Parts: sequence; structure tokens; C-alpha cells
Amino acid sequence: MIRVGIIGQGLVATHFAVGLEKLKYNEIPDHGVPLRNWLPYKYTDVEIVASYDVDESKIGRTVFDIALRDYPGNNIPGSLRDIVIRRGIHLNSLKGLPIKARGREEEKDLQQALLELIDEWKSMKIDVFINVMTTEPVEPVGRLGNLEKRVMEEDVTASQAYAYAVGLYCEKVKPAVFVNAIPSPIANDPAFIEFYKQKKGVVFGDDGSTGATPLTADLLEHLYERNRRVLDIAQFNIGGNTDFLALNLPERNIMKKKTKSSIVEDILGYEAPNYIRPTGYLEPLGDKKFVAMIIEYLSFGEFKDELYIVARINDSPALAGLLVDLVRLGKMALDRESYGTVYEVNAFYMKKPGPPGFKAVSKYHAYMKLLEWAGVKDPRF
Amino acid sequence: MIRVGIIGQGLVATHFAVGLEKLKYNEIPDHGVPLRNWLPYKYTDVEIVASYDVDESKIGRTVFDIALRDYPGNNIPGSLRDIVIRRGIHLNSLKGLPIKARGREEEKDLQQALLELIDEWKSMKIDVFINVMTTEPVEPVGRLGNLEKRVMEEDVTASQAYAYAVGLYCEKVKPAVFVNAIPSPIANDPAFIEFYKQKKGVVFGDDGSTGATPLTADLLEHLYERNRRVLDIAQFNIGGNTDFLALNLPERNIMKKKTKSSIVEDILGYEAPNYIRPTGYLEPLGDKKFVAMIIEYLSFGEFKDELYIVARINDSPALAGLLVDLVRLGKMALDRESYGTVYEVNAFYMKKPGPPGFKAVSKYHAYMKLLEWAGVKDPRF
Amino acid sequence: MIRVGIIGQGLVATHFAVGLEKLKYNEIPDHGVPLRNWLPYKYTDVEIVASYDVDESKIGRTVFDIALRDYPGNNIPGSLRDIVIRRGIHLNSLKGLPIKARGREEEKDLQQALLELIDEWKSMKIDVFINVMTTEPVEPVGRLGNLEKRVMEEDVTASQAYAYAVGLYCEKVKPAVFVNAIPSPIANDPAFIEFYKQKKGVVFGDDGSTGATPLTADLLEHLYERNRRVLDIAQFNIGGNTDFLALNLPERNIMKKKTKSSIVEDILGYEAPNYIRPTGYLEPLGDKKFVAMIIEYLSFGEFKDELYIVARINDSPALAGLLVDLVRLGKMALDRESYGTVYEVNAFYMKKPGPPGFKAVSKYHAYMKLLEWAGVKDPRF
Amino acid sequence: MIRVGIIGQGLVATHFAVGLEKLKYNEIPDHGVPLRNWLPYKYTDVEIVASYDVDESKIGRTVFDIALRDYPGNNIPGSLRDIVIRRGIHLNSLKGLPIKARGREEEKDLQQALLELIDEWKSMKIDVFINVMTTEPVEPVGRLGNLEKRVMEEDVTASQAYAYAVGLYCEKVKPAVFVNAIPSPIANDPAFIEFYKQKKGVVFGDDGSTGATPLTADLLEHLYERNRRVLDIAQFNIGGNTDFLALNLPERNIMKKKTKSSIVEDILGYEAPNYIRPTGYLEPLGDKKFVAMIIEYLSFGEFKDELYIVARINDSPALAGLLVDLVRLGKMALDRESYGTVYEVNAFYMKKPGPPGFKAVSKYHAYMKLLEWAGVKDPRF
Repeated sequence: MIRVGIIGQGLVATHFAVGLEKLKYNEIPDHGVPLRNWLPYKYTDVEIVASYDVDESKIGRTVFDIALRDYPGNNIPGSLRDIVIRRGIHLNSLKGLPIKARGREEEKDLQQALLELIDEWKSMKIDVFINVMTTEPVEPVGRLGNLEKRVMEEDVTASQAYAYAVGLYCEKVKPAVFVNAIPSPIANDPAFIEFYKQKKGVVFGDDGSTGATPLTADLLEHLYERNRRVLDIAQFNIGGNTDFLALNLPERNIMKKKTKSSIVEDILGYEAPNYIRPTGYLEPLGDKKFVAMIIEYLSFGEFKDELYIVARINDSPALAGLLVDLVRLGKMALDRESYGTVYEVNAFYMKKPGPPGFKAVSKYHAYMKLLEWAGVKDPRF
Repeated sequence: MIRVGIIGQGLVATHFAVGLEKLKYNEIPDHGVPLRNWLPYKYTDVEIVASYDVDESKIGRTVFDIALRDYPGNNIPGSLRDIVIRRGIHLNSLKGLPIKARGREEEKDLQQALLELIDEWKSMKIDVFINVMTTEPVEPVGRLGNLEKRVMEEDVTASQAYAYAVGLYCEKVKPAVFVNAIPSPIANDPAFIEFYKQKKGVVFGDDGSTGATPLTADLLEHLYERNRRVLDIAQFNIGGNTDFLALNLPERNIMKKKTKSSIVEDILGYEAPNYIRPTGYLEPLGDKKFVAMIIEYLSFGEFKDELYIVARINDSPALAGLLVDLVRLGKMALDRESYGTVYEVNAFYMKKPGPPGFKAVSKYHAYMKLLEWAGVKDPRF
Repeated sequence: MIRVGIIGQGLVATHFAVGLEKLKYNEIPDHGVPLRNWLPYKYTDVEIVASYDVDESKIGRTVFDIALRDYPGNNIPGSLRDIVIRRGIHLNSLKGLPIKARGREEEKDLQQALLELIDEWKSMKIDVFINVMTTEPVEPVGRLGNLEKRVMEEDVTASQAYAYAVGLYCEKVKPAVFVNAIPSPIANDPAFIEFYKQKKGVVFGDDGSTGATPLTADLLEHLYERNRRVLDIAQFNIGGNTDFLALNLPERNIMKKKTKSSIVEDILGYEAPNYIRPTGYLEPLGDKKFVAMIIEYLSFGEFKDELYIVARINDSPALAGLLVDLVRLGKMALDRESYGTVYEVNAFYMKKPGPPGFKAVSKYHAYMKLLEWAGVKDPRF
Repeated sequence: MIRVGIIGQGLVATHFAVGLEKLKYNEIPDHGVPLRNWLPYKYTDVEIVASYDVDESKIGRTVFDIALRDYPGNNIPGSLRDIVIRRGIHLNSLKGLPIKARGREEEKDLQQALLELIDEWKSMKIDVFINVMTTEPVEPVGRLGNLEKRVMEEDVTASQAYAYAVGLYCEKVKPAVFVNAIPSPIANDPAFIEFYKQKKGVVFGDDGSTGATPLTADLLEHLYERNRRVLDIAQFNIGGNTDFLALNLPERNIMKKKTKSSIVEDILGYEAPNYIRPTGYLEPLGDKKFVAMIIEYLSFGEFKDELYIVARINDSPALAGLLVDLVRLGKMALDRESYGTVYEVNAFYMKKPGPPGFKAVSKYHAYMKLLEWAGVKDPRF
């Protein structure tokens, strides 16, 4: 059994919870779960035991209630009635958004709130924590020596506070996994990687790789393998879910700070001019975002070709499907005592795979590495 | 030195000839040549020594003349003045097209015409033949026992006649390569594979893999690796070059006979409904075709996503770039005495890689196999 | 009250019937009904009183039953239980399709079947007939003198037979309207226009203008008004409903006979090369077709621009919405005794507006003419 | 003869100058000139007599020199050697851009600089001034009473200063036209409209209507005329010319201030959620921008359709083509003494047609009004 705690009961978490329960009862096929039933752990081995949020409209209600409210189609498994959403850490992670939020640390100090959480987790014997809260503005810690000080001074974001607490939990209670599916640098922060190594924990991250970025990576690989010279790439994204809203609030200042992706240079071997970033918020699009892309390249004899891609992608289900793998791969990493982080997992599932210092590779190559790490054979070959 | 004979001095051959000469003199970068300067044979090792066609407006003129007429930009290397286009085999391969064509076999019988050609090739010491004639309606030979009979009865197409003659040349003169870059089944015809094995020749084929098909293969691989369920694929192609004209002439009856591609089932593992075929002829598009594609698939939780791709692709240069590799790989196969055909080469460069019986694989996987066969290491890793 | 008879209880008829009833009860807004509530006749004035089909799986069942089976969402108004689908005329209109069909004329002769129908219509006092059967292969009658003979010899299609019978009904019973929403030439056949003039009937047609064609017309107008020179247009269509199936069956031979549209030349003033036709059948797309289009044109200084359009269009609802207008406009034409056909109506609603001899105009211009004919003022101005 | 002065010798001005000269000598067709040869003034009636800029690399050189440097194709009419680029007004209009700029007002005070310009214009007898400088951050003047004060205090932009000077020129020398083809509000600023009425001048503006915005307007009209309910519109633009660079410099703060377009509400009659704005700068795209658009709408029965548009548009030639009309229409307005501004002209040619207070209309309707004002009959009807 793999016992899972959710951090951030938003759309992704709801799709994950609903989908997982349906998978267990064979009510849906496992589309969107890359490693399907190939892993030693089965879907029925995974159990969600806790959920945390800071949205007052969610705290105290069950995941079933929230799913009924937010999930299209509304056919919600009854087992989700058992998971009550608890108050988590806020630290202003939702600041600027039109959400009434209050964190546990606002009632006592952060240190005490984290210890309280660790006690709760202990009683629930959680193995894997999934961080799927809304994108937050964040500064990496950098040196392990600064981590404790930053936490003491409450100079951390909610994700960093959770990652810190999970590390302590690993030490005090039992080894566990922190799956960081949002952009905050955890698996890319040397401080946290070192911390997890010491505390006997595993961190996967950062930023679940869904949407157009993995597709772009593989298109670039396709062009590289033909030695076509990429002249330029532009990729636009617009959607209507909370994440797009958060990214576009000027006061949250997230987009500007977004570090430039290195995938273009890492895959192609040269820096093709590119404009790749989330572009806007348009409420009626909801969770099904609109992506538009142009890639221009030179073919043999310097003739110019153009590639235009338009996509409509359900944002949250895509990430939820990856979580079904990550939870199981996390348990496998624990079994193998692969503490710190695991590049072979991150490289396929994450937009910014930790640890820092590794080059980006196309998802095709990452998939090969992943299968090898997981000890899985592609049945086609 | 690799001595090359061209069969069919159309746009592809012209782009190949012009591009190759420019490459030798470092006048253009080697964009669109997948294996770049990684092979033991260099661009300067390749020399075009002969060219055959049946278009009366081309025969007797030089490749330089034709390039000046047909090549955009018109900056034509003077070295192409040395290659005079000779009359080749017609066998009605251009029937129905608005081209005044006459083949060598119309003046004598086919048998004699082929022997004459072999004599010419011998004097020019050709190593590699490139078949880039216009798409022709064709029936495979099937059993080697039928091959000679079919040739005797002139019940073969021009491509089949050339492939037969090159086989005889291998036996009589020296081992050589027949690169079949058009759809006619040669590397997929057991008769020809067996024939080349016996005669000590190499055939690469069939149908150079450019345009949208390899891209589709890699997109399908991308979806497979995420376990997304493909619901349907439609891919339209329209262009204004001779090949699109030939495919759309009802009397040529090519499109209808086109065997259905197995890439969808081979890569995905199931038969997703698809409509993939050349669609029309529109003269002003010229050699830069318009491709439109839709792929619909189910993500986690059975949410439907849509992918639309629009591309503008210069058809002939893309194939010409592959030929720069195929000529060199052909010579490598001769050096290694790998007679018959070489799946590892065909799998990457061909739409219908021979020999028959092999499953289609994504081009990513084919690229890995190719690098291995060629003994090349990807410098990125 | 406007009493309506449906010919062909396919998807379009079902969307029309369901939508109309919902409109009457204000359960849906009137999106997709161009003239909205601006006409003297209201939605509640329209009543469907009869429906004809030849599909054995439909005959004898009610429109409610069929809607329950075929209508997405399935919220079907109970009033549709009152309309029982009757056996109509077949004349091989469904030949080649995988549908078990039998027409009334197969039990007796055509002449007698038509007279029987006229009697039925008389008892139901039908005012407007809507022809929405599946596209059929057809030859126009041409001269009025041939019409009766063609019917006698059963050398007509189902649409022609119905159109003939409705004409007789106009004479014998009362003036009525035949709305021909399918491609068969009725409003473009001089024989039928003359026939309706004599019998005091009105025919609207041909081929309801939905999908990409009216959009293309308006895009061309947009380019004309900027004096941009259109170089080429390609427009692909693929869908999964019965109409796409019918168009793609080679034995039905419809696509090949499709007369070339004159909209390009009529709107632009010159014949820009174009490839505009339904392209294929792909079952999983269902009623929501995929359209892909390219338009290339020269701007000032002969710079080339490109326009690519991709659309997903629900085919049947779009036409159903137009029918809500056409039924009411038909009654207005009867009130005004505008017998024969009405170009101002056809020009906006039809792909091939009758009568023959009129130039195509952009839909913008047609809309202006339509408003004028209908005596409606655009409330924006 | 119409004597023209150019303000801002950028790409648009160069395309205008080169194209106009070629038009005069029948070297190119008049594609992209909406009113073609239908107007009383012919192409040969237009003569460019002056050009102003503040880029040190342009001042003192001829339009021929600049065209040779910047114009693709490079076939430059020799007549452009006669137009020497003079130093104009800067007022920081290029601030933040990587251009070494210095204005005439930096050597003396603004007042004096303007008087000097008026003298120059007088000697050249200029009739029409075209403002095509780079987009500038700007505050409208609002009340005529403030205009002179704002100029005195140098609290105006370069466009406002020129517009003011041209007004004085109208009074002192002769009636003239100021064509404001950039976004700065001149024809939308009540102060300037009143000023031109008093001084006997004509102002056309603001912001030449090219690219995707007029297309969007006409698509919305198309949807309105079918009563389809638009759910959302997103439109992205990215390009590599100076204008995109200027719009994307954060310190120029232009994008944020961009007033929201009212076309969506004005044409549809309701405010459909939309995200329409220039999106980014990508240098290799150059002057041929990439536009991507999504429009979602409800059809009959509330079925949702989607429209995706991708376009590649040569930005500067499109506007240059409109200028060929605007210059001639300006002279016609002078002949008619239509001082102030002319809505019928602005409505078709401008993104924000002045005067303020008029509703946006689709370009189709604007075209009808324009033809009427110009006294031109569409030869198609």
C-alpha cells in the first residue's frame, strides 16, 4: 500500500483523486498514465489518505464535495467522502488571487504549525506527498546552511515550508517522497536535494511536464535528427484555470521571473531564438487551454519550412495522469533507498528536471532512460 | 570516391546535384543532412557522373541547364555543366502527364536497352544509383522466379527495369547500390531483395521519408509514451509539383492503389482510425506543399484533447538532403558487403522500409538504430 | 401557424425538431438562427406535423425515439412523441450506404405513391416541406417539358420526386414551400422553377450554406475589398456523419460530379486556382467536422501573405438553425405570392442559390439583401 | 499633383515610397491598394517631396539609400535618390530603443523647431503629411484649450507636435492633411479635431488597420449575421520589426496602456471575453508577423464550434498599400473642404477610427460607406 497526502486540493488533485478511484474499480481505462500497469505497484496499491488546502471554501469539506463542484461530468466515486480537506500552510501563496485563504501558520507560528503537520502525517503513515498547489512566486534557498534560518524567519513559500517539513518527517518518522509538480525549485534547489539525502527522503521535481513543452522538446529532437536548422520558435498558451490567472496577475510577478528554459539549446545544440511562455488568461477557456506555436527551420539547400501547431489540451487531467506514475515510482525509489532525487524519473515527468546541472534531453530519450530505471520493457519491442 | 548515377532528373535530383556541389565548396551549411559530417565518407567524396531521364526537353542538355531553368534562386554551380542528361527507360512511367517522353526501349527492345545502359554504367564506374523518377503505377514482382520473365515480357515499370539492370551490373561489373527513393516496391519486393543478395548489390528503399509522415510517426510515439489513446488522425497534403500532379491524375490510378500505411498500428499498438493520403494538386503551391493534420486523443480520465498541425514543407530539398546520406551509407554497406537490403538504414530514411515483415517504428527509434549501424555517436551525449 | 413536413429524418432534421421545440419553450437561446425574433412569424408559430424517411429502423417510430437515439445530451422534448415517421420515397437515394431502406414506391408504382403522399399532406395541411435527406447522385431535368416524362419513367431521384409531388400539391391543395437544403439541383433547375411558378408554389435552394463555404466567401470578400491578389485556395473537409460517408463512397460517384463552385471567380472577379471539396470520411469525428484551409495572396508590393484556417464545426445543428428561418421566410413568400424561387433568400442561405444565372455574392452582401427583402432592420444601426 | 511629406522613414515609409514609384511606372500591379484606379486621382498624381526622421543613421541620406539597405529584393527606383531625409522632431519618441536618435528640438526649442519645419513645408508646398513613426507612449490632449499650453511646455509627443505644426501650416500656408497611421490618438483627440476644423485642415486616423484586427472584425460580423454566440476570442501577434520591439520594451509601457478595443462589443452587440493584443518580439520573424487566433462560439442548439486562424502577414507593405489610398482620399477631402476628420475614411482604414463617439463597425460595412463617400461604384455590381 502507498499512502498519499495531497498538498493543494485544486483541479489537478481532484482529477487525480477521481481518476485514481475510477482506475481502481476499472471504471476508466488508464489513458494518460505513461507506465500503465507495467510497474510492480498497481493502481489499487495507492490510497489517498489526506488533503491540505488554505481556501476557506474547501477546508472542512470532503474531496467528494469539491469534486462534485468542480469536476466535469460529476460522476464522483463515493470513496472520496472519506477524505476531509484540512487547513494547510499558506504563507501568502494565494496572495492576489480572488480566494479567501488562511493558513495554519496564521494561528500559531510556522515552526509550531509544521510540527503539528508532521504529527498528523505520522498518524496517517503517509509515504508520498504530492505538491500541486497554485504556482507561487519563490526564491530558491541555495545552500543547505540557509534552509533552517529561512524557515525560522518565515522567509519561505508554502512549497518550501512543506518540503522542509516532509524532510523532517523522513528523519523523525519514516522515509517519504515529496513530488513537486509545480514550478517552485525544490528538486532544483541544492539545499533541498542535500536535505533529503541527509534525512532519507526522495524529492521528484520540478514542474510536471504536460502541455506543449514536452511536445516542443520532442519536435526539436525530430528536427535535430534531420539536422534542420531551427530559425525561431514561438509558443503561446492561454487558459482559464487558476494557474493561468495566477501567472497573469502583475502583482504576483511570476511570469517575469520565470527562468528561461534551456531545452531549446540543450536539444538542438545551439540557441535558436525563441519566445516560449504562458501568455494570458481567458476565463471561458477553463481548464482546456489553447496553445499556438510556430517553428521555422532551414531544410537542405537553405529552403525555409514552417510548422504551425495549434492544440487544445485539458491541463489538469494531463498532470493528474502523470501523478499516478510518480506516486508509484516514488515508492520504488524508497524501496531502493535512492535518497535525494532521481534524474531518470524527473527527466521524463518534469519540465525542469532536478538535480541542477543536468542538460535537458528530449522526452524520447528521457522515456528510454525512465524505462531502464524502472526495469520496464516496452512490449512493442 | 563514390560515383553516383541519377535516374530521373526532376526537382529532387536537381536539388541534390546543386546542393551537393555547394556543400563541397562550403557554400551552404549541411542543414537537412541527418548524419552531417559524422560519416567516414565526406561530401567531397561524392561525385555525380551520370543522369538519366525520358523527358525530351531534358535529354541532351546538362544538369546545369535544367537547374538554371527549375532551381529557385538560380545560383548554379558550374561543375554541373559536365553532366549531360541521357535518355533512360520510359515504359510509360510518365503516361498521362503533360510531358513529351520517349524511352530508350522504344527504339530497340527493353533487353537490349538495359544491356546498353549497363555498358554505359561500366564505363562510368558507377557505385550508387539514385531512383528519383516520378511516382509510377506498379505491381510488385513477388517471387524471384518471375523477375526475368516479367522483364522479358516488358511487364515491368521503369523502376523495376532499372533495379533489374543494376542487379545485373552488380554481377557483371561490380557491387553497387540502388537507392529507391520513390514508392515503387523494390526493397519491399522479395524478388528484388533476393536478386540483390545473389548479385552482390544493395538496395535501399522504399519511398524517401520526408514531409508529414515521419513527423506523424514521431507524434504518435510521443502520444504512445504518455499512453494517450488516439481516437483519430487525418492528414491532408496538397502541392503543385509533378508528384502531386501524377498522384491526382485519375487515369494513373495511383492513389487508390496506395497500400495503407501500418505506422499507426505499429507504433500505437492498436489501429486508430485514420485518413492519411496525398489529397490534391494545386499548381501555385509549387514544391512547397501544404499539410494539415488533426489528431484527437483521450488523456487521463478520458478527457479529449485535440492537436492540429499545419505545415509548409519544401518537398524536393527535404528528400535531396536525405540522399546525401543515403549515397554515403550505400557505399558503407558495399564496404561491409551487406548485400540485399539494410533495415537499419531504411527504417530511418524510408516511408516503407524494406524488407517486408518488419514492423514500423517511430523515427526516434529508427535514428538510434541508424546511429548504431553507422557507428556514429551523437555528440550531445 | 406554419405546418411543416420533414423529408429525411436524419441528424439535421433531429436537431431542427429538438431545437425548435426547445426554442418554443425558451429552453435554449436562439443562437444560430440568423434572423432571430425579427420576423413577423415567431418560433411558436412553427409546428412540425409530419416526417418521412426510408430507413426501416426509423419508420413507424417517433421523432422522439430517434432523437433519444441520436441526439447528444438526450434531453428530448416530449412533444416529439406525437410525430410518427412515415415511409417516404426511396428511388435508391441511399444506395450503397449501409442502411436497410425501402421506399413507398417499391410497393406500388411511383405515380401512385406520390398521389398517396399528396393526400396525406392535404389531411395535415402542410405549408412548408423541408428536404434534408442524404446527398444523392442526380441529373437535373432542365426543361419543364421533360419533367412529367422523367417522373413517369421513374427517371428521377427521391428529391426530384418529392419536389414534383409538392408542386402538384400546390396546385391541387394549396400553395406551399419546398425548402431544398441538399445539393440536388431543384432551385437551380429551370424545370422546377417554372413548375412552381405555374403551380403557385415556392422553392428555396439549393444546398444549405453552412460550414466553411460561407466563411470562405466572406474571407474572399475581405480580400477583394483590400485588393489583395489571391494566388490559391485549398479547403479540406472531413467528417464522420452520413453525408461524408455518402460523398466518399466511390460507387455513389457524387464527389466527381460535384460542379465546381463559382464563388471564387464571382467574388474576386478572376479565377484564383482553388481546390475546394469534401475530402474524406473519418467515423470518430462524427457530426463535428474538421476543416482546414489555406489562402495565399499578394499584398502591396507583391509580398506574399498566408492565411491558414482550421475549424471544428457541428455540421447538422448549423443547418438546423438556418431551417428555423427558412420555414418562416417560406411562409412570408407564400403570403406575398412570390411563386417560383426567391433569390434574396437563397443567396444568403444556400451554397448554390437559385435561380441559375445569378452571380455568387459574398454572404455579407447577401445578408444586406436578405434583410431588405424580409423588411428587417439591423438593430445595430 | 499631390505633394506628400513622410514623417518617420521606417519600413512602412520605405515600402510606400518604393511601391508608389513602381506603381507609377507600371512595374507592379496595385495589389493591396483597396480603391485601385477607381479614384479621380491617379498614382502618377502623387509625389513624395520630403521625409523626416530622427535616426542619426538615416538623416542626410536619401530614401534610395535606406531602401537599398532595408527593402527585400532591393530593386529600388532611382527617383528615390531625390528625397533626402531631414532631421525631424524626436521628443523621446524612440526612447528605450537601440537607435541613436536626435531631434531638431534638441538644438533649439520646440517652438522654434516647429516654425522652421513649417517654413520648409511651405517651400515644398506639401499637401499631405503621413505619420508613420514608431509607436510612442502618449497622453491625449483632450481639450483644445490645453493644446497650445502642452506644446509650449514641450509636454507632447513627436506625433502631437507634428500634428500641431501641420495645423498651423494649414492656417498660415494652405489647407493640408495629416494622416495619422500610428496608434497615438490624434483623430480621436477632440482637441486636434477641433484644431483642424479651425485651421482648415484634415486629419485621418488613428492607427492604420492592417493585420489581424480588420480580419477579426469581419469574422465577428460573419458570426453576428448567423447569430452565433461568441464565447471567447484570443488573438496573438508576434513579429520582429521595430514596432514589435517598441511594444515589448517594458520601460516604454505601451502595451499596458493600450486602450481596450471596442470592436468586439460594437459588432456583436455584447461583450464577449477576449484577449487581443500584440504579444511578443521575435527578431527572426522580421516584418512578416505570426498571428494565431481562436474564436469559440455556440451554434444552434448550443453546440460549440471552434475556429482557429493562423496567419503570416507582411506588416509594413499592408499599411503602405493603404497609404496610397489615404493620400488620394486626403486630397479629395481638401477639395471638398471637409475639414476636421472624415469618419467614412477612418472607419475603413483605421483601427481606432476618429472622431470619438462613433461605434466600431465591421470592415464590410465600412467599405460600403467608404465607396459611397468616395463616389465609387464597385464594378462587380
